Amino acid sequence: MIPHAPHSSNPLHRTSLAGIMTRFIAAMALLVMGAPLSKAANAEEGLKGWWLNKRFLPLPEAASPQLQESIRTGKKPDVRALLLITPQDARGWKVLQTINDAPIAKRVPERAASSNVTIEEAKIAGVRVFRVTPHKIAPQHKNHLFLHVHGGAFVFNGGLAATPEAILIAARARIPVISVDYRMLPDHPFPAALEDVTAVYQALIRTHAPEKIAMGGTSAGAGLTLAAMLHFKKLGLPLPAALFLGTPWADLSKTGDSFHLNAEADRTLVAYEGVLAAAARLYANGRSLKDPEISPLYGDFSGLPPALVASGTRDLFLSLAVRVHRRLRDAGIPAELHVFEGLSHGEYIPLRDIPESKALFAELSAFLSRHLK
Amino acid sequence: MIPHAPHSSNPLHRTSLAGIMTRFIAAMALLVMGAPLSKAANAEEGLKGWWLNKRFLPLPEAASPQLQESIRTGKKPDVRALLLITPQDARGWKVLQTINDAPIAKRVPERAASSNVTIEEAKIAGVRVFRVTPHKIAPQHKNHLFLHVHGGAFVFNGGLAATPEAILIAARARIPVISVDYRMLPDHPFPAALEDVTAVYQALIRTHAPEKIAMGGTSAGAGLTLAAMLHFKKLGLPLPAALFLGTPWADLSKTGDSFHLNAEADRTLVAYEGVLAAAARLYANGRSLKDPEISPLYGDFSGLPPALVASGTRDLFLSLAVRVHRRLRDAGIPAELHVFEGLSHGEYIPLRDIPESKALFAELSAFLSRHLK
Repeated sequence: MIPHAPHSSNPLHRTSLAGIMTRFIAAMALLVMGAPLSKAANAEEGLKGWWLNKRFLPLPEAASPQLQESIRTGKKPDVRALLLITPQDARGWKVLQTINDAPIAKRVPERAASSNVTIEEAKIAGVRVFRVTPHKIAPQHKNHLFLHVHGGAFVFNGGLAATPEAILIAARARIPVISVDYRMLPDHPFPAALEDVTAVYQALIRTHAPEKIAMGGTSAGAGLTLAAMLHFKKLGLPLPAALFLGTPWADLSKTGDSFHLNAEADRTLVAYEGVLAAAARLYANGRSLKDPEISPLYGDFSGLPPALVASGTRDLFLSLAVRVHRRLRDAGIPAELHVFEGLSHGEYIPLRDIPESKALFAELSAFLSRHLK
Repeated sequence: MIPHAPHSSNPLHRTSLAGIMTRFIAAMALLVMGAPLSKAANAEEGLKGWWLNKRFLPLPEAASPQLQESIRTGKKPDVRALLLITPQDARGWKVLQTINDAPIAKRVPERAASSNVTIEEAKIAGVRVFRVTPHKIAPQHKNHLFLHVHGGAFVFNGGLAATPEAILIAARARIPVISVDYRMLPDHPFPAALEDVTAVYQALIRTHAPEKIAMGGTSAGAGLTLAAMLHFKKLGLPLPAALFLGTPWADLSKTGDSFHLNAEADRTLVAYEGVLAAAARLYANGRSLKDPEISPLYGDFSGLPPALVASGTRDLFLSLAVRVHRRLRDAGIPAELHVFEGLSHGEYIPLRDIPESKALFAELSAFLSRHLK
């Protein structure tokens, strides 16, 4: 892999908030000129391939009217340059965290209430978790549990911001959810998150049969779920009965057609360069991005539980979803793939009321009912 | 839909082979300047959306080494301009047919022999078919039948050129295959192909229980299979037990993200403009391209058989595969989606020995064994 994003030799040297804002404005200016992607592309020519001409991406007229309206009225990728800057130190990351997480966390109480779920903070094995419980648990899920691992590039969606997807799963499948508020970047690179998820799972299987537990999440949450499966196998732990792998960040290197084809098309992630590239390096903590403990796509998928994999045609991680699905199928695992027209990375979480999101969580509900004992 | 391809007011006015070659050279020249796509994109700006910068598409390093080697050494989309010209008359189409079909048909006897299948030409209900029979039929398929509908934009792959995919299905699933050499463009627009497929099916179900019949094909073959399902429902015919829908041309209009995101990335189809746009108009025979009899994606999928849908991350029809899969699932049909990293439209047929092709036909074999009674 050729790293494209600019980076400091010391990723944690101190800079000021003013410095971050300066780089933010510079990144915006560069983006308007189309510079970052051209630069990346030049570096890639050595890899063999060909140039694709500039093209216009119209509204996805085969997507739901609601998704089209969201795209038509929402921010376009070229103004989402916040994701294309590279924080240079811990304080820079924490500013980004606050900008991302605070508004999400603020909406949680209203979301929980309107979704007919309760949220309680708790500790399991010393790790903070959120218990998200539907007012009415589905009869088939009375003794079941969904262990939720939130996404956010190992840096975002800590605290209550972890729960919007957990709320959706609890509300739509009417299953009790435990969402792990695992330790994250910038202070806690690999293996902190994996240790926290493992500690919670080990505690849970003391009181719940693993065949009554499902597990998963979106993006880094799905990647971490897969890494946990490889880790559980190594520890000799019994595996859960079913996995939800929403557009999994299962390979932290820039590998896959969709990183190229869907750059600037994906409204959520925009491009690999910037936050994703920087978070990948920081999380890997000196390891290769193709180490299976960092990027579980390079690990052994034999014996993994049945899995539902989801993505969208604009998803920067579409190739990761496709590759995870394929690797699972090749290992003989009953895995199903769902790809939604016009959908960017993980948009089924914030756009919870669009038909695409409802269809995905209806699929997940049916899948959980089929596979949990 | 806004039609982008240039077209004559009389699509069947006569021109010479020299004229075709002139347009071919002109199309090549335009392509080098990047003109056709820019023109199309300009026309689309009214649809709302945004521009995607020029970008480099490297070799898909997560695809099999064999597929990578084929891409590295094969023709790049910018020299496949043959597909971007618009034949102006029947003779023009027939020249293209010969250029496409003759080399494919020529390789069939060798392919059949090395695949341990026999090919016999026959007539069923007055329609020419090819019976493709494996030397050793799988025990579970002794009384089963796969009705194959070849692809080729309703214009290509007539005669023996219909059979390479039929050979693959017969050889890999070890099931007897009947491939329909249905009437095609330019002489026979809609509904000739549908009539031929229907006539063969009606004859077959007189001697075979429908639950012992699978049906399908790739591209126009998959689209025609879906159109046939809607037609069979209207006629009150019992439906087959399972469908194979390889990257289905189920919507002949230019609708879907992949027509934009994967233009020039797909080595097989390159772009909608040219042959595809022209064949769509000619096939529709005056009807709207969104008429469900022309584009079955706009029809009612309730009651359809279980289906396996396949595509690739570079497939110009990826959005069609995704939309067909979604429509089937929304109608409660057990449909499965398989998307292969780095694969262009229908490449699993010509690149029959790459791992991606083997994996797809292994999935299809297992799928047929599960669903045929």
